[in-house]
Amino acid sequence: MCGIVGYVGKKRATNFLIDGLSKLEYRGYDSAGVAVENDGKVTVVKHKGRLSNLSDDLDKNVLEGTVGIGHTRWATHGEPSDINSHPHKSSKGNITVVHNGIIENYLELRKWLKEQGYEFKSQTDTEVVPNLIHYYYEGDLFKAVVKATERLEGSYALGVICGDDPDKVVAVRKDSPLIVGLGEGETFIASDIPAVISYTRNVYLLDDNEFVLVTRDGAEVLNSDGSKIDKEVYKVTWSADAAEKGGYDSFMMKEIHEQPKAIRDTLTGKISNNGVSFEGFNLTKEDLDGVDRVYIVACGTAYHAGLMGKVAIEKFAKIPVEVDIASEFRYREPLVTNKTLLITVSQSGETADTLAVLRDCKKIGAKTLAITNVVGSTISREADNVIYTMAGPEIAVASTKAYTTQVVVMNLIGMYFGQLMGSLTNESAKELEEALTLLPEKIEEVLAKKEELEEVAKILAKEQDVFFLGRGVDYALALEGSLKLKEITYIHSEAYAGGELKHGPIALIEEGTKVIALLTQTKLREKMVSNIVEVKARGAETIGVAYEGDEIDESVFNKIVRIPKVLNMVAPVVAAVSLQLLAYYTAKEKNFDIDKPRNLAKSVTVE
Amino acid sequence: MCGIVGYVGKKRATNFLIDGLSKLEYRGYDSAGVAVENDGKVTVVKHKGRLSNLSDDLDKNVLEGTVGIGHTRWATHGEPSDINSHPHKSSKGNITVVHNGIIENYLELRKWLKEQGYEFKSQTDTEVVPNLIHYYYEGDLFKAVVKATERLEGSYALGVICGDDPDKVVAVRKDSPLIVGLGEGETFIASDIPAVISYTRNVYLLDDNEFVLVTRDGAEVLNSDGSKIDKEVYKVTWSADAAEKGGYDSFMMKEIHEQPKAIRDTLTGKISNNGVSFEGFNLTKEDLDGVDRVYIVACGTAYHAGLMGKVAIEKFAKIPVEVDIASEFRYREPLVTNKTLLITVSQSGETADTLAVLRDCKKIGAKTLAITNVVGSTISREADNVIYTMAGPEIAVASTKAYTTQVVVMNLIGMYFGQLMGSLTNESAKELEEALTLLPEKIEEVLAKKEELEEVAKILAKEQDVFFLGRGVDYALALEGSLKLKEITYIHSEAYAGGELKHGPIALIEEGTKVIALLTQTKLREKMVSNIVEVKARGAETIGVAYEGDEIDESVFNKIVRIPKVLNMVAPVVAAVSLQLLAYYTAKEKNFDIDKPRNLAKSVTVE
Repeated sequence: MCGIVGYVGKKRATNFLIDGLSKLEYRGYDSAGVAVENDGKVTVVKHKGRLSNLSDDLDKNVLEGTVGIGHTRWATHGEPSDINSHPHKSSKGNITVVHNGIIENYLELRKWLKEQGYEFKSQTDTEVVPNLIHYYYEGDLFKAVVKATERLEGSYALGVICGDDPDKVVAVRKDSPLIVGLGEGETFIASDIPAVISYTRNVYLLDDNEFVLVTRDGAEVLNSDGSKIDKEVYKVTWSADAAEKGGYDSFMMKEIHEQPKAIRDTLTGKISNNGVSFEGFNLTKEDLDGVDRVYIVACGTAYHAGLMGKVAIEKFAKIPVEVDIASEFRYREPLVTNKTLLITVSQSGETADTLAVLRDCKKIGAKTLAITNVVGSTISREADNVIYTMAGPEIAVASTKAYTTQVVVMNLIGMYFGQLMGSLTNESAKELEEALTLLPEKIEEVLAKKEELEEVAKILAKEQDVFFLGRGVDYALALEGSLKLKEITYIHSEAYAGGELKHGPIALIEEGTKVIALLTQTKLREKMVSNIVEVKARGAETIGVAYEGDEIDESVFNKIVRIPKVLNMVAPVVAAVSLQLLAYYTAKEKNFDIDKPRNLAKSVTVE
Repeated sequence: MCGIVGYVGKKRATNFLIDGLSKLEYRGYDSAGVAVENDGKVTVVKHKGRLSNLSDDLDKNVLEGTVGIGHTRWATHGEPSDINSHPHKSSKGNITVVHNGIIENYLELRKWLKEQGYEFKSQTDTEVVPNLIHYYYEGDLFKAVVKATERLEGSYALGVICGDDPDKVVAVRKDSPLIVGLGEGETFIASDIPAVISYTRNVYLLDDNEFVLVTRDGAEVLNSDGSKIDKEVYKVTWSADAAEKGGYDSFMMKEIHEQPKAIRDTLTGKISNNGVSFEGFNLTKEDLDGVDRVYIVACGTAYHAGLMGKVAIEKFAKIPVEVDIASEFRYREPLVTNKTLLITVSQSGETADTLAVLRDCKKIGAKTLAITNVVGSTISREADNVIYTMAGPEIAVASTKAYTTQVVVMNLIGMYFGQLMGSLTNESAKELEEALTLLPEKIEEVLAKKEELEEVAKILAKEQDVFFLGRGVDYALALEGSLKLKEITYIHSEAYAGGELKHGPIALIEEGTKVIALLTQTKLREKMVSNIVEVKARGAETIGVAYEGDEIDESVFNKIVRIPKVLNMVAPVVAAVSLQLLAYYTAKEKNFDIDKPRNLAKSVTVE
């Protein structure tokens, strides 16, 4: 993970660097640092902990200079500490670097550089980079960076400055994201658009192995041989406001409340009298007939949305689907051929393992479809087809609106495939369309009585362990509800398929253990109640999530959370909102930083 | 779950009933009870808790009588209590019943019986059965039982006695196991063979909807219309000793040590110069060519073995495989056709959800292959093809030798399919054969230095939460290692794919959190080490499981457990033994009942 920024302009560099980093803090916040060049001298200031440690220092000890780079870190190699923080400087000379990614051959390079007389202070993989650049430096920073990257294995987005070659930042990316912001008399680099959006809406979206020479006059995008690349300017259409809290105490709460709009926006233009369609989508019935396997591959929350996709596609289109975790799929020699359809799901469109799967499958000739929330992201650019969730920027680390819009898109894909295959009846299509269209108002109903969940949260906040149980799509939802609680409350919650509990995990149930049971699947409800009776008989305190009006043996539950009745297939979208609120209020009760849970970063751009 | 026994003979009935129940205690031990008929009077004695509560009572208050039934319970409906214990008696008359299974329409039947003037004392589903039998009783117990079962929905194995129709037990099964033991002047019924093996080796294996009239002279197996079924006597070949502890302090430890032999027995006759073959196995190359999907379906530990099966079949035979949990697969309308091959895995061959999947798929015309440890079990009789793990009786609730032999069989199936498809090179086949054949001695090496794991267990015993990490087949192994720890130590352990941790769960890592990392997959080792560096950077204490001789950065681990170097594909078998020992010693350190963990039963014959 990690976020990097860079600035060349006429104002004090740290102004942008700190502001830009604050917009990238979702990418990591173990430590932060800046390096500023002034009159050929480079000064590095860096601190362990949150960005505020750095900005407080810079408020007191002002750093002059109009050229600089900055970094916010999510530790991979080496514990969070001042020493391991970026920027890193070469032990000889003046080369200073910020880096997002992992240098895989750093041990070997470090050994070699030591033999060349360089010294190392940190445990990081990054520290080899400035030293290697220094080794090749002969007065031209760009050329030295090119030569150094030829020896790097792994992934990197780099920002480099040098006291001896001032007034410029040299940057490059490979397998880690990087954009360039084009201002008036000032130029920016950043890991992501929100860092620069208050300054400019004109950006370059860099591709792998593109180098950039950043100056006050703009940015030249170059190949490694120095030849110029004619890069298109991408105009950002969303506003800076979209990345602000807007009256809520946290981005997460704001984003929970944005779900009705996010789903409405996602549905817009995709459902008409002729059924479901996607703009610019070129998968035809013939293509689908030629597909013998569908894989949905993703990580974390997006993987949970993928589980819903399997149900929808198998149910509506009768095409078998396998869902897998990207980091597993990638290394297990899956049976991918040119008859495979790969569907990847990634909010950021930059998730490293998911991107690698996409590239591997494309090489084999598989058809690819990406579901992502970020226009212009690497995955969106490299997939054959893209469907965007129109959730707007998601800043909180714990995904909310990205997840529910992904689940909506999964249902739409299932319907679309079902139409193409002729396996979806008009009646089912109508029923689903109606159910999807009603979702925003059903979610409003959940939000309107959110205080009810505050009560349940007070109970959960005292727990060390919580279990989520569900069957069918409720099991997929249980996995997501459990992850949400885990991410922001640090309670060890775990999800189980209702029928699987007695094959081992029920041993953990004791007097007072809290069990959350999801009961949105009408056909499976009685089976779930039987499972709950079993844990209740062993002392568990049980919280049910069920439709309003459903008759349920209330004696089996200590508490029942009611959600509006909707079609079973879309119920996870509505119930997910209750579980998000539950996690939110529990974290709040425990006084935790909801938007920036410990150890986590938003966009996982390293493996 | 639950176990039932019954006796009609010339000796004191409770002698066999208590001894038989002790052999069935692995099926549940929330409570136990017996009912004995003497001179037309039926006396019921039952107690909450372990069987010893009941036997202590019977030692003091001897129950005379030579006809009786007994029950050991795993609570489903109604908490464990004296009242909810079996046997249950009719509120009028003298009908007494023991039951294993679930009566699904009991609420409706109870309501109706109340209208007929019957009274109910317990919260159980079972109590409707004696009352319903009484309702139909007109002097012939057999006829009354037939009429009552016509109104029952769900699953049941029933043993029934009646004071007014003495000197007999009437029994019947549907979807729950039941056998009859044929002695000299005495006849037995039981849920499983170990209960009767010290008394007789001649048994009837009952099928669904077969009724038995049990008397001193033997047993008549009847259809519901009273017509006689010509039942074959099955001769049990294994000895009573096989179900005794043989010098170990627990069945689990005994069974851990039996793994070299269990694997040797499982391999015997399956590998020859012509490659892998299975006795009586009729899947041909043509059959396999006609298969477009393979599902492996199982529960709990057997599901984890199934995950290994997917890897083996996809790797050696290039046939796509999907693995699913039986209770999920059953209800999610999977795309099963007559081109599907279903592989079920169940130690007992009686697992209710797995059996239901087998039956559903057979109805659709799918080909079926069962892997089970129990000859004559329902699943073994109903599947088209069976491969037996030759692990011998597994008594401890936490599965050990059944799991490792299942993983061995999974590799054999992968190889067999690979041979048929021509996708397995002779070289790979040789290498695998050799690796499998070496497993027993490699496991002996692990057992020889088991005390090393006692040290690690002392650390784990103090923990509330533990995490297991692995990639590829190490991930499947992590799931099993984590379940083992959970089952017998009640530590909340959870397994994660190494690459998935940073998508959420890493939030739970704090100073001192114990993380167990599996490193048996050579190609993925460096990736795993990177993941461990990440948790270590956040304060985790890490325990690695790696091959002897593998060079690993020891600074990343607080402790490394070394296992003998074997072929990557079979490594889980060897490493599993270390993880079993780890769970065993941790439970021992905590002074828990290792063979009978709380809340769990061995053979899950209810959904």
